[in-house]
Amino acid sequence: MKPAFLTQDQNRVEQFLEQTLGQQSKAAASLHQAMHYSVLLGGKRIRPSLLYRCGLMLGASVQDLDAPAAALEAIHCYSLIHDDLPAMDNDALRRGKPTCHIAFDEATAILAGDAIQSLSFAIISQHSYQQVSPQQVLSMVQRLAEASGVGGMCAGQAIDLAHTNHDYTAETLEQMHRLKTGALIECAIELAWLASPGEKPAEHLSALRRYASSLGLAFQVQDDILDIESDTQTLGKPQGSDHQANKATYPALLGLEGAKQKAQQLYQDALGALQQLPYPTHELQALAHFLIVRKH
Amino acid sequence: MKPAFLTQDQNRVEQFLEQTLGQQSKAAASLHQAMHYSVLLGGKRIRPSLLYRCGLMLGASVQDLDAPAAALEAIHCYSLIHDDLPAMDNDALRRGKPTCHIAFDEATAILAGDAIQSLSFAIISQHSYQQVSPQQVLSMVQRLAEASGVGGMCAGQAIDLAHTNHDYTAETLEQMHRLKTGALIECAIELAWLASPGEKPAEHLSALRRYASSLGLAFQVQDDILDIESDTQTLGKPQGSDHQANKATYPALLGLEGAKQKAQQLYQDALGALQQLPYPTHELQALAHFLIVRKH
Repeated sequence: MKPAFLTQDQNRVEQFLEQTLGQQSKAAASLHQAMHYSVLLGGKRIRPSLLYRCGLMLGASVQDLDAPAAALEAIHCYSLIHDDLPAMDNDALRRGKPTCHIAFDEATAILAGDAIQSLSFAIISQHSYQQVSPQQVLSMVQRLAEASGVGGMCAGQAIDLAHTNHDYTAETLEQMHRLKTGALIECAIELAWLASPGEKPAEHLSALRRYASSLGLAFQVQDDILDIESDTQTLGKPQGSDHQANKATYPALLGLEGAKQKAQQLYQDALGALQQLPYPTHELQALAHFLIVRKH
Repeated sequence: MKPAFLTQDQNRVEQFLEQTLGQQSKAAASLHQAMHYSVLLGGKRIRPSLLYRCGLMLGASVQDLDAPAAALEAIHCYSLIHDDLPAMDNDALRRGKPTCHIAFDEATAILAGDAIQSLSFAIISQHSYQQVSPQQVLSMVQRLAEASGVGGMCAGQAIDLAHTNHDYTAETLEQMHRLKTGALIECAIELAWLASPGEKPAEHLSALRRYASSLGLAFQVQDDILDIESDTQTLGKPQGSDHQANKATYPALLGLEGAKQKAQQLYQDALGALQQLPYPTHELQALAHFLIVRKH
């Protein structure tokens, strides 16, 4: 069952993003529209919710979490626009609606992605924080930039494009997912950590990172399983599209049952990491549970 | 004649960029290669030189200028990769060499541009500054993000793609250039201002902005003139390519002589702005002179 806080977090980050987009220049009208379309197309808003719940658990004020949550989600949104492009995954549907380059055109989609990435760094750097020092905000910028780039998300997408399921090992597949999806999910934890007050032991951050890392991979394994088991209407994208595109998936490498076992194992790892923490972790547990049993 | 400091600044920023790229993850080898190829393809490095010369004039340490100069140039480099893509300007040559999507492939070029933008924000946020406070560095991040995005460079490119010379007025053309090229050139001044120590009167920044704004537009008008007058070998891209692509240019709108007058007028405006300043502006004068008489 979907946790109530996830809906709250979705609404909150979408309101913040909508407001921020409304304040941007409309000198290039179609570019602005394409950005708005893609950022507010919907989506589970997992990364912002993880950031909000982790930050609140650590004692941060919710206002101080708004900008990092929105910036992180904006990075995710821009990456989806570019991943869907004809030269990349060539997808026409996203969340049941036309992808950005179909709704607008390819050039606008490329630029919208670029401008959303810039916006993400504008959001995080210009926010009025209550309890976060400029040095901590700078560290947030740095972590977000590293998680997004050649050491993180972009590298994962490049590895994904360079392989088909014929030449993937389970090890390379895991590395790819840890970069492509995992880097931003771990980044949610790190931004929440930086936005929360007080000195905290480094081993708490390590445990939270292990939670995020297992969660991120479990999320991806579950995605692969849903691509086989779910139907197009529930999924919002053509069912079996990864399979048809000859993409590497966990079910292809491990079999469907093996993939399900892998997801369960990762779920237990995530819960195990939380047990080492002295904070009230029930919301992070609920988030992990929701991501494993989800149907879309 | 090319000022000696421009060669120094080129070498310095390229060394910094080369070193920074060397420190990045090579997990996705072809992505890393494409980034290296595009960032170190050559180029005039006007923006870094402007930033170095303005910052040194204002009393900044050269080490404090390295990161903003490299970050600004990286943004420029990523924008060229994306501008050259088939869906955008579809150019096969850049600085006499194959463009990124020709040397690698389209997907890699899209990702290389994306990862270079991220790298730019990593560079500026993680540098060890000597005299620049975290708050000033955060302002740099903010300015760079704004100049790059929907209120700056990306908007300019979107306006450029939406028009041909048939539906351009001189006013729209100027707005396009002020966003597409001018935003980053003005940003060079603003980053130099933020990296330099002490309280300085706001009207000095205004005068420097006027200098940069005139310089940026003059640079673009000169580009249009060179596209007609120069030959392919000198230019490093097919001569007349803008003209053939039915792009709006100043010569097309004002005639070749009108365009030359416009460039001269802007050059005088730039020098006029410098005369209002109590600093030794001879290098900024030399840079303006070089950009107007350049042949490529």
